[in-house]
Amino acid sequence: MEKTLTYGMVGGGEGAFIGDVHRRAIALEGGARLVAGCFSRDPAITRSRGLSLGLDEERLYGTPAAMAAGEAARKDRIDFVVVVTPNASHHAIAAVFLDAGIPVVCDKPLVTNSRDAADLARRAAEKTLPFCVTYTYSGYPMVKEARALLRSGELGSVRFVNAEYAQEWLTLPLERAGNRQASWRTDPSQAGAGSTGDIGTHVEHLVSYVTGLEMRSLSARLDTFVEGRAVDDNATVLVEYAGGAKGLYWFSQVAVGSANGLKLRVFCEKGSLAWEQENPNVLQVARLGQPVQSLSRGRDSLSAEALGFSRIPGGHPEGYYEAFANIYRAFLEHLRCPAEPAPDYPGIAEGARGVRFVERCLESNAGGGRRLDF
Amino acid sequence: MEKTLTYGMVGGGEGAFIGDVHRRAIALEGGARLVAGCFSRDPAITRSRGLSLGLDEERLYGTPAAMAAGEAARKDRIDFVVVVTPNASHHAIAAVFLDAGIPVVCDKPLVTNSRDAADLARRAAEKTLPFCVTYTYSGYPMVKEARALLRSGELGSVRFVNAEYAQEWLTLPLERAGNRQASWRTDPSQAGAGSTGDIGTHVEHLVSYVTGLEMRSLSARLDTFVEGRAVDDNATVLVEYAGGAKGLYWFSQVAVGSANGLKLRVFCEKGSLAWEQENPNVLQVARLGQPVQSLSRGRDSLSAEALGFSRIPGGHPEGYYEAFANIYRAFLEHLRCPAEPAPDYPGIAEGARGVRFVERCLESNAGGGRRLDF
Amino acid sequence: MEKTLTYGMVGGGEGAFIGDVHRRAIALEGGARLVAGCFSRDPAITRSRGLSLGLDEERLYGTPAAMAAGEAARKDRIDFVVVVTPNASHHAIAAVFLDAGIPVVCDKPLVTNSRDAADLARRAAEKTLPFCVTYTYSGYPMVKEARALLRSGELGSVRFVNAEYAQEWLTLPLERAGNRQASWRTDPSQAGAGSTGDIGTHVEHLVSYVTGLEMRSLSARLDTFVEGRAVDDNATVLVEYAGGAKGLYWFSQVAVGSANGLKLRVFCEKGSLAWEQENPNVLQVARLGQPVQSLSRGRDSLSAEALGFSRIPGGHPEGYYEAFANIYRAFLEHLRCPAEPAPDYPGIAEGARGVRFVERCLESNAGGGRRLDF
Amino acid sequence: MEKTLTYGMVGGGEGAFIGDVHRRAIALEGGARLVAGCFSRDPAITRSRGLSLGLDEERLYGTPAAMAAGEAARKDRIDFVVVVTPNASHHAIAAVFLDAGIPVVCDKPLVTNSRDAADLARRAAEKTLPFCVTYTYSGYPMVKEARALLRSGELGSVRFVNAEYAQEWLTLPLERAGNRQASWRTDPSQAGAGSTGDIGTHVEHLVSYVTGLEMRSLSARLDTFVEGRAVDDNATVLVEYAGGAKGLYWFSQVAVGSANGLKLRVFCEKGSLAWEQENPNVLQVARLGQPVQSLSRGRDSLSAEALGFSRIPGGHPEGYYEAFANIYRAFLEHLRCPAEPAPDYPGIAEGARGVRFVERCLESNAGGGRRLDF
Repeated sequence: MEKTLTYGMVGGGEGAFIGDVHRRAIALEGGARLVAGCFSRDPAITRSRGLSLGLDEERLYGTPAAMAAGEAARKDRIDFVVVVTPNASHHAIAAVFLDAGIPVVCDKPLVTNSRDAADLARRAAEKTLPFCVTYTYSGYPMVKEARALLRSGELGSVRFVNAEYAQEWLTLPLERAGNRQASWRTDPSQAGAGSTGDIGTHVEHLVSYVTGLEMRSLSARLDTFVEGRAVDDNATVLVEYAGGAKGLYWFSQVAVGSANGLKLRVFCEKGSLAWEQENPNVLQVARLGQPVQSLSRGRDSLSAEALGFSRIPGGHPEGYYEAFANIYRAFLEHLRCPAEPAPDYPGIAEGARGVRFVERCLESNAGGGRRLDF
Repeated sequence: MEKTLTYGMVGGGEGAFIGDVHRRAIALEGGARLVAGCFSRDPAITRSRGLSLGLDEERLYGTPAAMAAGEAARKDRIDFVVVVTPNASHHAIAAVFLDAGIPVVCDKPLVTNSRDAADLARRAAEKTLPFCVTYTYSGYPMVKEARALLRSGELGSVRFVNAEYAQEWLTLPLERAGNRQASWRTDPSQAGAGSTGDIGTHVEHLVSYVTGLEMRSLSARLDTFVEGRAVDDNATVLVEYAGGAKGLYWFSQVAVGSANGLKLRVFCEKGSLAWEQENPNVLQVARLGQPVQSLSRGRDSLSAEALGFSRIPGGHPEGYYEAFANIYRAFLEHLRCPAEPAPDYPGIAEGARGVRFVERCLESNAGGGRRLDF
Repeated sequence: MEKTLTYGMVGGGEGAFIGDVHRRAIALEGGARLVAGCFSRDPAITRSRGLSLGLDEERLYGTPAAMAAGEAARKDRIDFVVVVTPNASHHAIAAVFLDAGIPVVCDKPLVTNSRDAADLARRAAEKTLPFCVTYTYSGYPMVKEARALLRSGELGSVRFVNAEYAQEWLTLPLERAGNRQASWRTDPSQAGAGSTGDIGTHVEHLVSYVTGLEMRSLSARLDTFVEGRAVDDNATVLVEYAGGAKGLYWFSQVAVGSANGLKLRVFCEKGSLAWEQENPNVLQVARLGQPVQSLSRGRDSLSAEALGFSRIPGGHPEGYYEAFANIYRAFLEHLRCPAEPAPDYPGIAEGARGVRFVERCLESNAGGGRRLDF
Repeated sequence: MEKTLTYGMVGGGEGAFIGDVHRRAIALEGGARLVAGCFSRDPAITRSRGLSLGLDEERLYGTPAAMAAGEAARKDRIDFVVVVTPNASHHAIAAVFLDAGIPVVCDKPLVTNSRDAADLARRAAEKTLPFCVTYTYSGYPMVKEARALLRSGELGSVRFVNAEYAQEWLTLPLERAGNRQASWRTDPSQAGAGSTGDIGTHVEHLVSYVTGLEMRSLSARLDTFVEGRAVDDNATVLVEYAGGAKGLYWFSQVAVGSANGLKLRVFCEKGSLAWEQENPNVLQVARLGQPVQSLSRGRDSLSAEALGFSRIPGGHPEGYYEAFANIYRAFLEHLRCPAEPAPDYPGIAEGARGVRFVERCLESNAGGGRRLDF
């Protein structure tokens, strides 16, 4: 029988959305259980949350550092830690666990500057510790199918990528109305950046994951449409890749009518594909001179890469939790069997690239949208 | 802290689809863990499956009866049992657990005849034991929203219901090619009925759940399009409800192009609603003289009934596992707090009604489609 | 140069919708122009409408009989007449033109009883006069493509047909509020039947046209949901065809949210197709074991039959007028070149079959939905 | 009775697509008929096309100049001329007709440089001659509804516009395979520009028409993905408008899978709207805090502006011909009643703006995408 792994969590206390998602996704996947936590800066919150989750009181910690030290000292120490705090604290927290020899899963964006990213990468590499950055959307089976299709070469080389991520939730100045999520996500000192960091990094990763294209340069225009907002809430980025392909990314948090509209279209010499996160079980594929096809998870023949992450028969929708669980599926496999190449999950290199993407976008925008090498 | 409940499972061994779905749905929901099982008639399969699931060997049983007796005798006995065997064995298995005082979750259709259904109902009632029949599709938040909208009276009385459930998986005679699922589901002695029992009962339940309409009569035409098949693989049922509303149900397992196409449309005096299982986060609502609306889970204001079963923000798709988990959410709540009225899950009365529906359809069809009281 | 034909119109005066559609469709097609008319029982309306359409006053007639006689006596007599009056007057009007030797285009349903239909058929046959019944929807290129695909045999034999036609416009008792269209269409003496005659005949024709299946028996349930209405406003018909295929037709004029929702799905042994009138440039085709395809008019390779009725490149939507013009395209071709087989337009046999369909539905319904030979 | 106007056509000979569209659209609209033409540089083609269209031989001309002179000299001279030749000849042809006092309808793009556009504008103004540039897509009723909705102010000010026009037809180097359309449209000397001129101008006009926003600056990146092509076949343009709104335009002729995918999304402070040309009878409207609505032509209450251009009931699709006919509806009305303000059709100012847009895009691209005032 496969050993059940154990994990701890930093962040994910009251009012947090993503901590609960991580916990449920792991439960859905199976194979790991929560045994330790530091859920909040407020020990009372950590305690109540921990008890309600059935944890032993002795494994509820006041600070990440205490948790790293405490766990490292135990024989039954956690197999990994999940960091789901606001972006600005990721570096310090991840560092202390890496130094304690504990593998890390960290929400995206990884950190708020490339120096910190490089620092974490170095610490992880030194101890050869698996490190996962939860770019959830690459966990969807049909995203993996898109990637396999492009890799197969059947559609020819990529010419143009059109990717977008449209949300509406920051259309009003919620940060001035006391909304907790809005407050930290629009606070440069906590979030590091606005829409670019929050959702633009998802776009950057999704495109890179699916196409394998290497970004060579970018030119960004960041907009702030809500008066008084300290970060961008809308952005357009023009991208050039190695080999001559080009891309267009648009992300917005003021796009009324859009809940979580991440969409990817890739146009190649002989075909194209399109995928939408809100209808994730379908991949649209067009080939020149042939009717457009709807490839459907579970119904249609998929590549081995996609099949390994598809759980239930066609027509039974899999959603966000299942995509999240798939990130953990690969990460847990890596923990159990640390051979190379690592299974298919986003690692620290992808996280660092996302941070650099945000930096470059801010820099290009500050320069009036001038094109910068990436 | 809320007590974590424990459960056992009967069925769900090698090659089974639905047992794994139950286990993962419960894990996603949280609050209960698997501790006992009789996964197969073959003890070796039970043993290997049980160990791979991390169960104690002493709680792996050779027969359901042994399991009921063994668990009933334990101080830490299971809080409920999940029965996921082929339909024909549901009655005997459920009965033995009810008699042992153990609440039951049983997959649908409940049993293969109304006498057995009544028998189980009696046994459950005698000991006031919660009993859940997993009509999964009523667990979707937007199905609950549809129900709340009709209950509100805003759309006026229901006039006409058009419901369908189209699948393609039995288009070819898979049962003659050794497909396990196809074999038992098209074997009258194991399944009891064909498409009517397998998917027609889902339609019957979904309509009843959403509209609250009471069926008064029906007229059914069952078809078998695959030569040599022993059960129906396509059916049309015309329904009349108390109060004058009428309905049309169609279900098919030979509908090429449809994976799991359960769709419901309800037409009322002043409006209508439409919902599709393959796109479950949306409810389409039309009101006379107003533009058609797409009500979106997480994005739009929903009723309290629907909100209580919605887990993540809008645009983050919830799917089949989440619907399944919602059935358990209500059932676990009932186990923890047995007050009346029971929380919102399908019980033994719904299960029994489904069985009667199948019987009546077969009887009407045998009589050339004549209309029968329900 | 091709001779421009001339035509006259009976009906289509003030407040009429369909007369104007015929005129514009013919203009779009080209090749014929309006030169004579009897637009209303009221000569003043005929006069004003005729003048506004640029007709000579001497070719504006007080009655259909006067028009038939007047035109028959002219050297430049009309090449055909278009009859767009309420259903109950179709027979007398068409008869008088046929007897005068003038080909007829008549809106559907052809007449209100089978005796009249047979009578017209006899009159047309005696003089070998082309006769067209404007079942518009068979004019869409993708409907013709569907037909060609089924004829090719590639999808195997038809097993099951699911067709529906949902409208909402009679949800309220408009006939009691003075709505002209609603008044005659719900008046049995003018319309002959309700939803069955008005839209059910379109379904009957579309299925027959696309599949070529011969109806053997039917069983109908007609409903009247609006209190006090004299005709059916919703109906369900179960059909059996020669060779063992079966069908399900549903039509409704009280389906809130549906404007003109004619939809056809045909399930065969190895594939299926689906078409929706409100999105008419697309035909969805599913083959067992292959991704579902969207066949798009103009973009994808189509059969010769469909291509001959497709006018503009893909992505440039063709709609209702173009479908209507296609009916005329074939009819005008027949007038110019009366060889057999006639070009692809619905003729008097199709019109007569539609009338019989309505009669059989009414009769079956009166008998409690009993199955009747067709 | 309304006088039927007469018109002539220059261009639209063999192999031409758009000439036939103009002719049929005018026929569908009614109120004008073709009486003169110079359909080709080749007199034989003009003659055969003219005769097949039923024109008098004496009104078939060898050159545009001969036609302008010949018609100007007639008492029954044409009321307007339609110019549907390749772009590079528009200026000379339109000029000769304007100078002859004949109103002009010219396909877009108007001309190939701003000097010529200004020249035509001056000539038209001198004689107060109506001049129409057929930006077809502004003729759709739901486009007019979008415009009316934004004008109403109900959605607040526009923040961001995302518009795209994706085609696939130039994915392969058709111009080297002898395709006539591809040859002139990718020949800088005939077309003036590539995708920017051919379809980008449609985007520019549509956005301007719907939003009323005034472009202040733009930055363009033009791409040529097909090797050896002399013009751009893909482009991205970032736009800034007076008042702070911003826009993103993307157009492509190498977007495999897209036939004629013109799409417009406008995001405002309190709502948004979305329209797609391939599904033109629907306008999607989102308001903050309310379910997304599908506004449907014919079914839903529309503004007077849109209603005046909607011809048939809801659910009966109107398409490209009807949109085209609507451009003529307004232009013919203007010819009949030259009062100001002119009815709602695109005029010479819109045409000139489109030409400037192309010039600015080329210039910005040549400067490495630098931002230019518009």
